Amino acid sequence: MTPAAAGGPAGRVLVTGAAGFLGAHCLPDLAARGFEVHAVSRSPREGAEAEWHRADLLDPAAARALVRDVRPSHLLHLAWETTHGAFWSSPANLDWLAASVHLVRAFAEAGGRRAVVAGTCAEYLWDDRVCDETTTPLEPATLYGASKHALHVALRGYAATAGFDLAWGRVFLLHGPGEPPGRLVPSVATAMLEARPAACSHGRQVRDLMQVEDVAAGFGALLASDVTGPVNVASGEPVTLAEVVGAIGEITGHPELLRLGAIPASPDEPARLVADVRRLRDEVGFTPRHDLREGLALTVRALREPVAR
Amino acid sequence: MTPAAAGGPAGRVLVTGAAGFLGAHCLPDLAARGFEVHAVSRSPREGAEAEWHRADLLDPAAARALVRDVRPSHLLHLAWETTHGAFWSSPANLDWLAASVHLVRAFAEAGGRRAVVAGTCAEYLWDDRVCDETTTPLEPATLYGASKHALHVALRGYAATAGFDLAWGRVFLLHGPGEPPGRLVPSVATAMLEARPAACSHGRQVRDLMQVEDVAAGFGALLASDVTGPVNVASGEPVTLAEVVGAIGEITGHPELLRLGAIPASPDEPARLVADVRRLRDEVGFTPRHDLREGLALTVRALREPVAR
Repeated sequence: MTPAAAGGPAGRVLVTGAAGFLGAHCLPDLAARGFEVHAVSRSPREGAEAEWHRADLLDPAAARALVRDVRPSHLLHLAWETTHGAFWSSPANLDWLAASVHLVRAFAEAGGRRAVVAGTCAEYLWDDRVCDETTTPLEPATLYGASKHALHVALRGYAATAGFDLAWGRVFLLHGPGEPPGRLVPSVATAMLEARPAACSHGRQVRDLMQVEDVAAGFGALLASDVTGPVNVASGEPVTLAEVVGAIGEITGHPELLRLGAIPASPDEPARLVADVRRLRDEVGFTPRHDLREGLALTVRALREPVAR
Repeated sequence: MTPAAAGGPAGRVLVTGAAGFLGAHCLPDLAARGFEVHAVSRSPREGAEAEWHRADLLDPAAARALVRDVRPSHLLHLAWETTHGAFWSSPANLDWLAASVHLVRAFAEAGGRRAVVAGTCAEYLWDDRVCDETTTPLEPATLYGASKHALHVALRGYAATAGFDLAWGRVFLLHGPGEPPGRLVPSVATAMLEARPAACSHGRQVRDLMQVEDVAAGFGALLASDVTGPVNVASGEPVTLAEVVGAIGEITGHPELLRLGAIPASPDEPARLVADVRRLRDEVGFTPRHDLREGLALTVRALREPVAR
């Protein structure tokens, strides 16, 4: 499965965080784009679309050994601390910053040519303006956002001296099959599917939400392109959370279970958090397949009919 | 020497890079300020002003063990890749970013209260304006500057969540006893003291130069203060390199050996790189003891009469 040289027609990609929510959806997309896909996780899965490797990337020696073994031409680095709620301020963000620096250095020193790393909307100053990659100030309010932004600053400097291409895909809100159950879309949809009331905040928060298969395809398109620098991987379509949970109510057939205003909104979250997607659309050439309603319908269907993953 | 609790009246400080050019000058200053001083290096020295520890901070486990052993209330983190010339683009900058993140995390988790970390003028956009901490864009042109800026971004986010104080001292140009011989001031002064011609570039570059004992005292004052955030540790006095080497010529008595314009200037270096020092002067309350001429006289005297260090 690992030939000595080139990999698939598009190259050989190492995907970190490959067993995670987003990573799992990236593997078939990358295989379909002609990549020979190598997936790494502390808890590898099975699957024909990738060759799986077991490694703990928090150990720099393990990361180096993996990269020397696989010798990828491309890197899609998604692995990070993602424990729901806790990730915003966990000191594990610092560990992932350090581990990511070591991983990308190993990748470049082993001859890697192009790396795409997952950034976040939490890098931007949350002042309710549309977030664009060029002019929005990068003033993260959280340790998560600060650690991701710090990684980008360091890797951008490194790519310039080490001579590989770096693109930085900033993720906004996403939902879909495999999402951790405590988050907004699965928790509301599951409550409604189980005929329980779904307690929500006021719902006036404006967000940018994309279905996870579209986010994965956006990362695939970015990896396959030659675009460098930061790129928002998002829908560009502002939507209120009330519209999101309202649509879930209609799709599940239980709009009467919705309890808008039943729980307080977080005082720290911004009123608006929406992406400018001109770089993704015009430079990468990517547009999502699913609109909000179609995407949510896919997510609800997956919650109705869970499949072994 | 290491009591169970408090350290000196000002606290117990762990100084990294303590055997380096700047670090060595910090130790007596910190001891004079009432700190119990613990110095760490891969190559410890001897000296009454500090208790020395041997550790390789690039090994996170060694850093953790050291911090657990010393249990410092204060941290002055100066250690970094400093190989003359090479440090601008060395991938070792990434190793020091990762190691520094681990070190500061270990410090905070062991109960540390206040950390001061060395930043650099290379974090700023080099567009010839006076660099101030609040408004000058942070757009480093080098991997060194990018890695330092990345560290600040991450640590600022961490300090906010972990509840310790962080100040970030940005160093400009410095000179003095113990400076690596290849750098401008010692190379010109040594040539003149040995009656050899001193080849320089055109010398029109405007810089901010401070004698190392003043830089060390500035860091000591910053550590002893309760000022947080970025602070330029610099003179605030613009001077051309021609004025600097001219002064060295007068001090050594060999102005005729100066060869301005004999070698090309680096095309990458900025025309002006000067600090705004209002935070250091007005908030920290620090002003340097030596003006340019006095500082250079100290440096030349040390080169004339080298002492074992």
